[in-house]
Amino acid sequence: MYNHAPKNYDCPFCAIVAGIEKPENPTLQALIVYRDRYLTAWIASTTLPHNRGNVVITTNKHYENLYDLPSSYGTKIQALSRKIALGFKHVYKCDGTTVIQHNEPDGGQSVWRYHVLLFPRYKDDNFDKYAFSPINASSEERIRYARKLKDYLNSFHE
Amino acid sequence: MYNHAPKNYDCPFCAIVAGIEKPENPTLQALIVYRDRYLTAWIASTTLPHNRGNVVITTNKHYENLYDLPSSYGTKIQALSRKIALGFKHVYKCDGTTVIQHNEPDGGQSVWRYHVLLFPRYKDDNFDKYAFSPINASSEERIRYARKLKDYLNSFHE
Repeated sequence: MYNHAPKNYDCPFCAIVAGIEKPENPTLQALIVYRDRYLTAWIASTTLPHNRGNVVITTNKHYENLYDLPSSYGTKIQALSRKIALGFKHVYKCDGTTVIQHNEPDGGQSVWRYHVLLFPRYKDDNFDKYAFSPINASSEERIRYARKLKDYLNSFHE
Repeated sequence: MYNHAPKNYDCPFCAIVAGIEKPENPTLQALIVYRDRYLTAWIASTTLPHNRGNVVITTNKHYENLYDLPSSYGTKIQALSRKIALGFKHVYKCDGTTVIQHNEPDGGQSVWRYHVLLFPRYKDDNFDKYAFSPINASSEERIRYARKLKDYLNSFHE
């Protein structure tokens, strides 16, 4: 509903979820911090100057946006968001967390697949200034954060 | 977990959810667009210049943040977020929607109760400039939006 993906859209998140290594990014799978039957989460390709190690969550099945996503995914997404937020607190020692989800081009969405953005927050992080002007994160940086966060998530118990 | 509410915190959202009219705001209940056994949603007291009629969703039971909230609320929150986003599309004729959820003071949270912010989005709405510098919305404006949205939500069917 209210879809914007072009015909034959080459969804970049589909490659990550499917475990396909693209030639231009041979380290894709090393960025994944969590995967189960329904959801996959990884260290985002873009970040903010003071909120590094931010994570993307998507569903393993392709839905374009909030209007399309079956709401029954909600509890799984909520549980994983909470787990990752607690991971940020524990591993990054951050001061807070912010969750953002955009829909449609004029709603700030730029990949045509429903996804949730999770940011670790810090005192004086100037989030208001940078939140919508992301910068690229290097593969090395992303893998470093992924390793740390993955260790925590793998050992997570309620 | 990671709580910041002062002792005996007079939670402003508790009054809305409980249906208590405060003397300084006698029209509180007219702002509610949806209420069921678990969740309440209303037109927010603060808005952005080009994203008016924005909505807050909270749980009827008080939880401070994402870390505290039982994840089982996820599907209910997802379903209501979707319903309201579709309401924005239908009633406001907006071009997109953005969902934001903050945790802890340094994470941008300012009311110590878990809540989700839903914004209608428009082409060239300068959301990046205004998103974290909200302005007050008048009661008249809020009631006007509440009436329109409520009519849609009451007649909503999958």
